Amino acid sequence: MQMTVSEVLARFVSETDFSALNNDNVVAAKTTISDCIGCTVAGSATEVGRIVRRVAQSSGGEGKATIIGGVSGASAQAAALVNGAAAHALDYDDILWSLYGHPSVTVLSATLAVAETEGASGRDLIQAYAIGVEIIGKLGRAVNPQHYEHGWHATASIGVIGAAAACAKLMRLTEKQIAMALGIAASQASGVRRNFGTMTKPLHAGNAARAGVFSAELARDGFTSSLVAFEGEFGWARTLNARTVPDSDGLQVMLGKPWELTEPGIVLKRYPSCGGTHCALDAMIAIKDQHNLKLEEIERIDCDASPFAHKVLLYPRPVSGLEGKFSMEFCLAVAAIEGSAALRHFDEAWINDPRVQALLPRISFNPRADLEPAISADAVPAEVTVFARGQAFSQKVLVPSGDPRNPMSTADRRAKFMDCADGILETDVAEKLFNDWERLDQVAQLDELLSPLRPQN
Amino acid sequence: MQMTVSEVLARFVSETDFSALNNDNVVAAKTTISDCIGCTVAGSATEVGRIVRRVAQSSGGEGKATIIGGVSGASAQAAALVNGAAAHALDYDDILWSLYGHPSVTVLSATLAVAETEGASGRDLIQAYAIGVEIIGKLGRAVNPQHYEHGWHATASIGVIGAAAACAKLMRLTEKQIAMALGIAASQASGVRRNFGTMTKPLHAGNAARAGVFSAELARDGFTSSLVAFEGEFGWARTLNARTVPDSDGLQVMLGKPWELTEPGIVLKRYPSCGGTHCALDAMIAIKDQHNLKLEEIERIDCDASPFAHKVLLYPRPVSGLEGKFSMEFCLAVAAIEGSAALRHFDEAWINDPRVQALLPRISFNPRADLEPAISADAVPAEVTVFARGQAFSQKVLVPSGDPRNPMSTADRRAKFMDCADGILETDVAEKLFNDWERLDQVAQLDELLSPLRPQN
Repeated sequence: MQMTVSEVLARFVSETDFSALNNDNVVAAKTTISDCIGCTVAGSATEVGRIVRRVAQSSGGEGKATIIGGVSGASAQAAALVNGAAAHALDYDDILWSLYGHPSVTVLSATLAVAETEGASGRDLIQAYAIGVEIIGKLGRAVNPQHYEHGWHATASIGVIGAAAACAKLMRLTEKQIAMALGIAASQASGVRRNFGTMTKPLHAGNAARAGVFSAELARDGFTSSLVAFEGEFGWARTLNARTVPDSDGLQVMLGKPWELTEPGIVLKRYPSCGGTHCALDAMIAIKDQHNLKLEEIERIDCDASPFAHKVLLYPRPVSGLEGKFSMEFCLAVAAIEGSAALRHFDEAWINDPRVQALLPRISFNPRADLEPAISADAVPAEVTVFARGQAFSQKVLVPSGDPRNPMSTADRRAKFMDCADGILETDVAEKLFNDWERLDQVAQLDELLSPLRPQN
Repeated sequence: MQMTVSEVLARFVSETDFSALNNDNVVAAKTTISDCIGCTVAGSATEVGRIVRRVAQSSGGEGKATIIGGVSGASAQAAALVNGAAAHALDYDDILWSLYGHPSVTVLSATLAVAETEGASGRDLIQAYAIGVEIIGKLGRAVNPQHYEHGWHATASIGVIGAAAACAKLMRLTEKQIAMALGIAASQASGVRRNFGTMTKPLHAGNAARAGVFSAELARDGFTSSLVAFEGEFGWARTLNARTVPDSDGLQVMLGKPWELTEPGIVLKRYPSCGGTHCALDAMIAIKDQHNLKLEEIERIDCDASPFAHKVLLYPRPVSGLEGKFSMEFCLAVAAIEGSAALRHFDEAWINDPRVQALLPRISFNPRADLEPAISADAVPAEVTVFARGQAFSQKVLVPSGDPRNPMSTADRRAKFMDCADGILETDVAEKLFNDWERLDQVAQLDELLSPLRPQN
């Protein structure tokens, strides 16, 4: 008899262990986990992070999990909620194209909370995280792009399923219980895209992470859901407007072969701005570095990008840091001045900086049809030309730094992590943390990686 | 400028107070609130109630709210979750046809938890409950039947909006904050119908109640959502497959004029079985009562009902109490023996009772096209003919007892309440509770109504 989607997924979760991951998978997992921890640290200091933390704490919830930047001793649900919202608060976190969304903010936030609660090892965490990402990638392939285009924030509406699966793995549920957890999660899938641009967008990630934990906790205690929660009339896929209902036979063949972690792989964001600016930023920074250009030497900057970029990057003269994230001109101005684009640049002081204001009128941003995305909608290729010293310096970038085909160097990742921790953690603590998270697979107890993330008072 | 749906709803919530309710509205609200409290008491002793309570308590959460049958001193979110799931666990709770679902399990469970936390009066609770029901009824009219038919459990996916509105009212949020709470709730709407028949169905109600509380708590603390969360591309209505997007001008005219509480009014369930059996049960009980028929006198029972009933009542020979709820034959057998159908009848002892087994083969259940629903899909008219003493006694019922057009008497409602409390509360405590909840509008502090609902140890 054909297995249902829940049964196929549950068997995969149950039967897969760390040995199923090759070295590339483990490296990819560690890389994205460390990146997401950095984003969570940064997000914990935002208004989103603070409000969700306050409300979650006022609802109480004691346990063994850490709210990053908050407290230790939280329930796994509360930690998953708060860390998930914080991780996505700055939109600086990673992307999985098969998901059409952000994998780690839901899967890692849920997994981390349960791993800590269960006293799991670094390998247990990596294994559960890999399983969660795998499931949301494969489900995403089946239901997208229609699911996303219909209005669903796939990060949450698919993410919750992966979070539940990963938590169920960490809790060592039986195959039957895992199937129940997945069905319970299917009835908690939510998040409408109309709330993009508000605090509710990152809340989607936190909610999905929390619901994933909750689903596994209920299933462990004997709660039931439909074994056919995903397929058929009124099932998750059709109700949430999937392209196709996931095919259980197909899933069985595809799960873990190869792993989404490395195929297509997870995209890290090198800059805390819209993905549409990343190729141009890479190009601008490369030109400035290679020719050691000083700001006062720069006469003009031309940036050509695909017409698609003009639909997203709407603010030639931004008035807030948030608008600055969606302004090609502003991002290029910052890069021309600083040779970088970091979290600290996206605030009103930098928007109003006289050097930025002087440069903006000399930057032109033009659509060019031949610069079509090379790999996916996120890779928005750009060609930047800087006029300086009576010369024109050009650079074309097709795939941004942070894409698996153009991965960030360890130095770049370390710099991002330090940027995320800036003003929140002491420099030496942040340095040590980055190094520690890089060796996650060798850590027997997560406590040493998490204790520096709890404020001391 | 035209107001958005969120703005229209927020203004209604903000500007409406108890004086906007006429006496009929208040009586209707008190009646359904008391009925739902009874269902929650009964549900607290089910497996659904117990598991959700255990998991919610293990996640902690201290506050001032009561988990019925559980503890006092819970957070409002935890109480809303647990009470909401318990209230819907037996499917014995009320129905609002404009919603296409169950109004009180989400709205009352959320409202009660927040009312207690805020130290609200009985009138405050009634006012907030009425507002919540009003909003889900009017939204339901706009989006149904497509929304429900597409696969959404409207009880939760619409209910969460009413729960958020009602909680925002009790928390005395500003109009702007109320609009934010509604938008936050829009991104937590979930619950797929594929999980009907499992424990996850009642969980939908609890989740929606909890999310309503959470949305209002976040908005009170400054959290933001889209002011156009309901309309437009990627908004709640289109993303969740609404028939039409709610029209803000139309809503403005309709809200509270008249109130959903009395037009169409809320249907109470007199019997703890599928609504499709209720007209037949009314008829059977009336015949038995009027002619004082003894079981041994009954030779045969014929029941005609609309063809629709045959699609729902699938178990001529049920093998479990749950199947018995969806068996016309079993329900009629119980009524023929007992002159009633109560919670205690839907268990295996009654399924296997020799009197039931002897009677079942002599009950025929027949489709009859002319018995089409008189008012709505739930009113499944039936004509029952009992052959006894060489005579045929017939009774046709078009609208079941409990429908607002055929309301339950106070004695019937009291009997249902006592049935719900049977084995859970002392009889005198339950009697007093029923009387107390009937005078809810005169109660200054909810504590006296809730303290008997907390176990003493």
